[in-house]
Amino acid sequence: MQELKDRILKDGRCLGTDILKVDSFLNHQIDVGLTARMGQEFARLFSGLGINKVLTIETSGIPAAYAAAHAMGDLPLVFAKKTSPSTMVDGVYSAPVKSFTKGTVSNVIVSRRYIGPGDVVLLIDDFLAHGEAAGGLYEICRQAGAQCAGLGAVIEKKYQGGAEKLREKGLKVQSLAVITSLKDGKIEFE
Amino acid sequence: MQELKDRILKDGRCLGTDILKVDSFLNHQIDVGLTARMGQEFARLFSGLGINKVLTIETSGIPAAYAAAHAMGDLPLVFAKKTSPSTMVDGVYSAPVKSFTKGTVSNVIVSRRYIGPGDVVLLIDDFLAHGEAAGGLYEICRQAGAQCAGLGAVIEKKYQGGAEKLREKGLKVQSLAVITSLKDGKIEFE
Repeated sequence: MQELKDRILKDGRCLGTDILKVDSFLNHQIDVGLTARMGQEFARLFSGLGINKVLTIETSGIPAAYAAAHAMGDLPLVFAKKTSPSTMVDGVYSAPVKSFTKGTVSNVIVSRRYIGPGDVVLLIDDFLAHGEAAGGLYEICRQAGAQCAGLGAVIEKKYQGGAEKLREKGLKVQSLAVITSLKDGKIEFE
Repeated sequence: MQELKDRILKDGRCLGTDILKVDSFLNHQIDVGLTARMGQEFARLFSGLGINKVLTIETSGIPAAYAAAHAMGDLPLVFAKKTSPSTMVDGVYSAPVKSFTKGTVSNVIVSRRYIGPGDVVLLIDDFLAHGEAAGGLYEICRQAGAQCAGLGAVIEKKYQGGAEKLREKGLKVQSLAVITSLKDGKIEFE
């Protein structure tokens, strides 16, 4: 998506060779117009698959996932939570997710009420790096007996291998911007 | 907002006298169509105030805040974070926020890059109870020298007094559904 790549080049900042900071428009301050257009692009890329639900993970995946669900005809959106809040009393599906940035492992959970057999689920996330978060969401779909139609990522860091791992599981992966290198502070796209 | 009140009566569940569980449409699974209409209602309630930015707090405030920012002409949306992630290297504004549900105090932070003098900020959150989260966001606006145009809450639990406290600070508060009691599992609106 050219508008997104242009914006990454204009406003993205590299921290070392692994981290691309895009908090001016993607994950702290949100460019709502750009996000709405990303949602339309996801709707186009995943049309015709019978998707009836969008699943993301808190926090920064939510705006793009909301925009995709809105563009796909106001589908229900579910966001997986990273810890069990005191008000979640029902049974949950859960999967461990490792954060390479923070060096931690958290459990992501989704209430059993909101995903089940018969659902055709689109996963959306802001970043696809090692594929840990998306792998956790995929595992939750598997536990629920739901079909996972694919993963839409806003920014993929291809050299970290997540997309390849997920495609090996049979998942359709589409990223709006695919980065092949952040070496020497220079952002390179596929 | 009648559609919202009807939905709360249909799908909300009371946990004791303090907690209203609405995770089937507001804060775990999201009804995207309803959320878009809530955004339009916030845009109507806060029109003509020169608002140029929407501020919320992660996580469950994000969909309604996104919808409001979209309905107000794709304004920038900023979400305050509850902990300092390792990638946030710049200076931040911060304020303590107490959670009565969880019995904890967390720091909410916003990068100094994204709010400043000249901004006219609308606060949006999913729940208004004791007013702690909104009070923290208001304090961040004050630190940034920004004008705070008001607070839009999806659900206000009036008997917990948050709206009154915020109005005493001069804040315009508008809630889409105002609950006066959850006694005996019965939801009563103003």
